[in-house]
Amino acid sequence: MKTVSTSKSHGGVQGVYSHASEVCACDMTFAVFVPPQAKDGPVPVLWYLSGLTCTHANVMDKGEYRRLAAELGLMVVCPDTSPRGDGVADEKDNWQFGQGAGFYVDATQEPYAKNYRMYSYVTEELPALISANFPADMSRQGIFGHSMGGHGALTVALKNPGRFKSCSAFAPIVQPSTAGWSKPALEKYLGPDSADWRAYDATLLIDDGNRFPEFLVDQGTADGFLNEGLRPWLLEEACEKAGIALSLRMQDDYDHSYNFISTFMDDHLRWHAQRLAG
Amino acid sequence: MKTVSTSKSHGGVQGVYSHASEVCACDMTFAVFVPPQAKDGPVPVLWYLSGLTCTHANVMDKGEYRRLAAELGLMVVCPDTSPRGDGVADEKDNWQFGQGAGFYVDATQEPYAKNYRMYSYVTEELPALISANFPADMSRQGIFGHSMGGHGALTVALKNPGRFKSCSAFAPIVQPSTAGWSKPALEKYLGPDSADWRAYDATLLIDDGNRFPEFLVDQGTADGFLNEGLRPWLLEEACEKAGIALSLRMQDDYDHSYNFISTFMDDHLRWHAQRLAG
Repeated sequence: MKTVSTSKSHGGVQGVYSHASEVCACDMTFAVFVPPQAKDGPVPVLWYLSGLTCTHANVMDKGEYRRLAAELGLMVVCPDTSPRGDGVADEKDNWQFGQGAGFYVDATQEPYAKNYRMYSYVTEELPALISANFPADMSRQGIFGHSMGGHGALTVALKNPGRFKSCSAFAPIVQPSTAGWSKPALEKYLGPDSADWRAYDATLLIDDGNRFPEFLVDQGTADGFLNEGLRPWLLEEACEKAGIALSLRMQDDYDHSYNFISTFMDDHLRWHAQRLAG
Repeated sequence: MKTVSTSKSHGGVQGVYSHASEVCACDMTFAVFVPPQAKDGPVPVLWYLSGLTCTHANVMDKGEYRRLAAELGLMVVCPDTSPRGDGVADEKDNWQFGQGAGFYVDATQEPYAKNYRMYSYVTEELPALISANFPADMSRQGIFGHSMGGHGALTVALKNPGRFKSCSAFAPIVQPSTAGWSKPALEKYLGPDSADWRAYDATLLIDDGNRFPEFLVDQGTADGFLNEGLRPWLLEEACEKAGIALSLRMQDDYDHSYNFISTFMDDHLRWHAQRLAG
């Protein structure tokens, strides 16, 4: 692991790191905020998964999580959204597929299977790296994310309920199998059989019996992707049927940007901190 | 004035606007955050002047001012740092001069005098535009900034003590006339006679009799520009001699980045809000 940069912030340290990822077969970059409480021992870890077109840097620059994470004593880890580099298959003119659009799946189709293994990356390789190199209490992990990363957070939590104590999302893609901006990606990464997509679809995972105790979801009503791409009511229906507690908050006039995310960041950090305490 | 974008944030509206500037003889872009209190009447205006290489966007993205500005009821206006465009004289390989480096002066030398009139722009043309188009209480204005913009805030306040009720700075260039990264710019904008630079140098303005009631200045001790470019002790000496109250806070291990600025943003907003109240 290489340190790209570190900078003191709110009494803690915001760092950027890179490493040669075996899982993704390329160099990967990620950001970690270590709160001041870490000098006294391991702290809980909160994973933030970003949306389409993002890298680790978007939420680091615009997410406004450091002030309260420093107060609450939360480490915040921000992975990239896909494998990167000239050797990684891509569709340069398509922002909904390829680099910047890994969808947190393990691709099975060529030429993507070699690098596009973001599910294993964020659930196995990167956690091992964090555990080995940072003062992280891996028995207390939460996960959240935005849009494609909200999809990532919900699916990762539903598939690993024993590992995560908390999960929330900002404007998540709740049913990627049937949304226009995600279905083609699932098809290219996972093949034409839609049965293979269910393992990466929050609502269908719930239909198939996966469970997580409770979710917090914020969704802006002025979000241009609400009706076609996001459709939180599908998650509401699935959770209601399954008896999963969902706090879905429709936020008047908020859009899909980091102005929306940063507005409700404090609420999400407190939600996680309460569930990661002790 | 054209609206480039608006986005709800923390109950207020973060907007970006552009206009054909007469003073700078080019199109200029700026950002304004209007807090929710503005629906009940005009609110105080806080001007943030940015540093070298920045546009209006850096502090808008990374400054983390909206949460508390929304709570305190402050409008925050963020101008660009220079004139812009293909028709504007520039030194493309020099980040300390030309576009992105207007130094908040009115240039007198060719070919800069036509466009590089950032002093008049931020003290006359843009305030008139803000007053005409936003719910701004122009009787309650404060000003702050970072680095080159800290220099801008201090000099603008010292030259307009009746207009501003508060002034603060993050890591300001306190004596640009003698610092390596600013002296060549003053020479090119204002000519070879260093007497002409004094009107744009905070410490020399104080030596020449300009006054402002009090300043808050934060400065990181790990700031790579501290000893050569910033030198806050020169401001401390000038203020002490002049009887100006200066709260200079050296912040251990903080650098020159927005991680430093955002950490102390709340303190500065509260400083201004107290002085702009009522």
